[in-house]
Amino acid sequence: MIIDHLDEPLPGSSLRPTPPGVAYTDPEIFTQEQAEIFEKQWNCVLRADSLPQAGTWKTVTVGREEIIVVRTRKAGIAAYYNVCRHRGMRICTTGEGRSKTLKCGYHAWTYALEGELVAAPNLTSMPDVDQEAYGLRPVHVREWLGYVWVCLAEEPPNFDEAVLGEVRTSFGEVESIDNYGIENLACGETKTYDVQANWKLIIENFMECYHCATIHPELTEVIPEFADGLASQRKDGVVHGASFGDEITGFTVDGSSGVAEIPAIAPDQERKYYAITVRPQVFINTVPDHVIIHRMFPVSESRTIVVCDWLFLPEVVEKINAGTLDVSKSVELFHRVNEQDFEACEYTQPSMSSSAYTSGGALVPSEHHISEFHDWWYAALGWRAPEQVRDEQTTAAQA
Amino acid sequence: MIIDHLDEPLPGSSLRPTPPGVAYTDPEIFTQEQAEIFEKQWNCVLRADSLPQAGTWKTVTVGREEIIVVRTRKAGIAAYYNVCRHRGMRICTTGEGRSKTLKCGYHAWTYALEGELVAAPNLTSMPDVDQEAYGLRPVHVREWLGYVWVCLAEEPPNFDEAVLGEVRTSFGEVESIDNYGIENLACGETKTYDVQANWKLIIENFMECYHCATIHPELTEVIPEFADGLASQRKDGVVHGASFGDEITGFTVDGSSGVAEIPAIAPDQERKYYAITVRPQVFINTVPDHVIIHRMFPVSESRTIVVCDWLFLPEVVEKINAGTLDVSKSVELFHRVNEQDFEACEYTQPSMSSSAYTSGGALVPSEHHISEFHDWWYAALGWRAPEQVRDEQTTAAQA
Amino acid sequence: MIIDHLDEPLPGSSLRPTPPGVAYTDPEIFTQEQAEIFEKQWNCVLRADSLPQAGTWKTVTVGREEIIVVRTRKAGIAAYYNVCRHRGMRICTTGEGRSKTLKCGYHAWTYALEGELVAAPNLTSMPDVDQEAYGLRPVHVREWLGYVWVCLAEEPPNFDEAVLGEVRTSFGEVESIDNYGIENLACGETKTYDVQANWKLIIENFMECYHCATIHPELTEVIPEFADGLASQRKDGVVHGASFGDEITGFTVDGSSGVAEIPAIAPDQERKYYAITVRPQVFINTVPDHVIIHRMFPVSESRTIVVCDWLFLPEVVEKINAGTLDVSKSVELFHRVNEQDFEACEYTQPSMSSSAYTSGGALVPSEHHISEFHDWWYAALGWRAPEQVRDEQTTAAQA
Repeated sequence: MIIDHLDEPLPGSSLRPTPPGVAYTDPEIFTQEQAEIFEKQWNCVLRADSLPQAGTWKTVTVGREEIIVVRTRKAGIAAYYNVCRHRGMRICTTGEGRSKTLKCGYHAWTYALEGELVAAPNLTSMPDVDQEAYGLRPVHVREWLGYVWVCLAEEPPNFDEAVLGEVRTSFGEVESIDNYGIENLACGETKTYDVQANWKLIIENFMECYHCATIHPELTEVIPEFADGLASQRKDGVVHGASFGDEITGFTVDGSSGVAEIPAIAPDQERKYYAITVRPQVFINTVPDHVIIHRMFPVSESRTIVVCDWLFLPEVVEKINAGTLDVSKSVELFHRVNEQDFEACEYTQPSMSSSAYTSGGALVPSEHHISEFHDWWYAALGWRAPEQVRDEQTTAAQA
Repeated sequence: MIIDHLDEPLPGSSLRPTPPGVAYTDPEIFTQEQAEIFEKQWNCVLRADSLPQAGTWKTVTVGREEIIVVRTRKAGIAAYYNVCRHRGMRICTTGEGRSKTLKCGYHAWTYALEGELVAAPNLTSMPDVDQEAYGLRPVHVREWLGYVWVCLAEEPPNFDEAVLGEVRTSFGEVESIDNYGIENLACGETKTYDVQANWKLIIENFMECYHCATIHPELTEVIPEFADGLASQRKDGVVHGASFGDEITGFTVDGSSGVAEIPAIAPDQERKYYAITVRPQVFINTVPDHVIIHRMFPVSESRTIVVCDWLFLPEVVEKINAGTLDVSKSVELFHRVNEQDFEACEYTQPSMSSSAYTSGGALVPSEHHISEFHDWWYAALGWRAPEQVRDEQTTAAQA
Repeated sequence: MIIDHLDEPLPGSSLRPTPPGVAYTDPEIFTQEQAEIFEKQWNCVLRADSLPQAGTWKTVTVGREEIIVVRTRKAGIAAYYNVCRHRGMRICTTGEGRSKTLKCGYHAWTYALEGELVAAPNLTSMPDVDQEAYGLRPVHVREWLGYVWVCLAEEPPNFDEAVLGEVRTSFGEVESIDNYGIENLACGETKTYDVQANWKLIIENFMECYHCATIHPELTEVIPEFADGLASQRKDGVVHGASFGDEITGFTVDGSSGVAEIPAIAPDQERKYYAITVRPQVFINTVPDHVIIHRMFPVSESRTIVVCDWLFLPEVVEKINAGTLDVSKSVELFHRVNEQDFEACEYTQPSMSSSAYTSGGALVPSEHHISEFHDWWYAALGWRAPEQVRDEQTTAAQA
């Protein structure tokens, strides 16, 4: 339906259209995105080592649902809807905690960490109540890169195809990201950003570097080739490692040296920055001495929470925690990039509802690979991209 | 329509379903509830003695309307829409006051306390304006238990059937509540709660005591049998008086003695707590020395204002006002119960929109009488309860 | 559709109906008003002398759009949608400024003050990009009375007919307003009011003086005839100059003398107040020594920003700025009138959704000319006024 709004592109132009503005502003389209994308695909929700012991749990928001992620005694990490099967109260009413069971605070229905109903007042007088059937409603869980990934779909997409395949497409080979041993790194810093913009604007922004010269002075100082507007993410299907400048000794806000390098990276990964997008809500950035991971949590058509982790070698994080090592120059570089990017997205969001943007905007040649994201988005919602419609119409007219 | 979402109950289970989650979250269903329930039925709005003299008035909200309740000179208490018949301005722009007439502050159209238009600038040059027809639009009024009850319907339900019948069903006999002489009691304390939950969650909570052991330590100390989960409100159609514990000398936060007992109560009403629900928005609680009355004012599908009065004998309230008697221990007990209940409702509300609650929750045997409220609710909106639909289908299939 | 709600007027009554309450409360009707009225007609947005030099710009809101108004080098004042043609970011991210070009802060697409795209990174490698076609999207601009008027319609209504014709209808002759030389006056004071009421309530309020005796004590002291309820705006099509009271020496809060009189006014404009409405969003008030102009910017169905300017002779404003002349008594009079009027509108807005106002309110004879505004409003939305429908039905029944 939304493709009705689109004008024809200017003939012969080297610019391609974006989706129409309504894609970024319509609450109904956002509801469809929640249902068809975020509640059907794999979401990276938290770092597995933030649940160190059996019984530690956190609540996270996936799509429109609140989910408990808990380390069990017998079955690794599990995840459940935070909804008591009796009368629905939130089982966990704070963001995190540790307990032997998951017990509802309303009528004391009590669930094992593994999910089944194990106790309730007068339960013994209700022998026909199936304690498995009335267990907490589970969601699918995987661990990868040291993160917990969850999927609310009853039949989740194959993780290897959906997530690893996405990385393989973006990063060339999954092996090359394996060099960073991200699952063995530790989190040295986490920052949360409350961005007043549609999540797709944030992905589009991350995918291109045409804006780098204008809004990222520190980043283009460290990686001079970004001033030319070509992103680390390229259309040819192989991620491009962007090289540090000649005088630069580390990926820090002033180009000074960083911390201990990750030992297993390949020679061509030294002095380079790589960035990939794992749709629908993860960005991975690698540099020789740390890895930066963004997780997005869309809240509304015009608001997105972004959580950004800076991961270092465990011995580096030990020193940070002991106060004997300062990584603030490393953190500050991408923190500034984040703030610069999100400000741009926030000044873009209000225009999405303008009649001057009814037909969307334009992608210059160095942004053309964003069309791939747009095609994925149209397909995820069961729509056809306008170009596809036009191609079909042309074919039909010729036949 | 909403019954489409419902799964079959687990076969053979002693648990019954609640309405589906959408019943508690859909703004359109809430609008229907405002139109079909709160704007058609009798609402208990304020204490009659809070309007002591002719010309004293208060404004109250009933459904989506603001209503003036005023003591007239000739006709007892009357109530009107707070809307000037000329250009619509609010006649009363504060919550309460006293005046000889009801005069609009915009163009000075002036109404008698009995409602008719009595003055307006240049009215004498408009002799064809019918001063009765342009009087304030009235709403129906009744007084009972010392409260003013209003009904916005043009043809209100019969008060004796709708309200007294409700009490008779719940309390066994209306006579037994008459013993408390509630209309002669005085208000010693009023507290207002702004609850972020659907009004039906508050009613369901009030109707059962399965939660008492978990969230009401003070109440179960005073009334030990509540720890067993059986409510004062029972399915057999006769309210059950719940007995005080052996060591308990009064319905107070620490079980210590209360104040002067209401003289006319029956022997079997001594040392007992009774609770009834007067649908759609009143709870009545009686103990030997005071009566606690809750009035609910739903604001949205997820917000309800609850006003709670503690009523004592007039001589007790005189002493409270004179500062010679302290009833804070009496008030504190149910104030804590209110806070505990409303917190549970507030932690339940967000789950109502979860896909894990699409088919609703479960009622254990000691909560089965809540189904009667659900049946009333389905009927009030012109819907059939899912069980009724299933029964009909079964009958049809057998025929 | 909205006319379905209307009752018949009381037979023989000298009162006329207003539109039904829904006209003032329905977000969808407000959206239609934005599309069909504010985004299609001429809007008075700012004082032309607030853009003194080439490159000075301000952003204003018209309907649902943010517009840049800028003084160009070659073409006087121009106005554009504040939307970059590339990816849509707001070009101007603050309310006002001065710059040589209009440059987007995201990817540095740069537009001349006259609108065309003049620079962008890598633009030279995209020779097929038409710099005119990718120029900022313009809106129509006119200057009159020293104000900038803009129209978002592709084919705007003829300014002379739509705006001057409106004034001519209201003010008798355009010449008589020309005497005040409003385009040569200077702004001595501006106040902004955030009114929680529908814009039509504000227009209706401005058009009648039936409320003056009730809410405007200072104004009726200065202009005693307003106490009779007859407005400066009359139905006979010729504006009525309302005379100052005998003891009054100026249009000030206490009736004391004002400042230097505007020299060219006609003898019958001395000691008189005139007021006209320029639909959809301007009020003009003239007195011998100053002119008061209101511009309305509707935000939602229940919120309107009103900006009010007090204009004096330039030599008066010079003295105000130099601190040698105090006009606070002149400003205070209409500032109080504004506050009194807007408070009345704010107490009227909530009643518009009452079932007691479903069929609207009533207009007394001295308000009957407001029907002309209502007819204009029905027509602007493509609807027929209820009276028109009834007349047609009567005619059809008779045929």
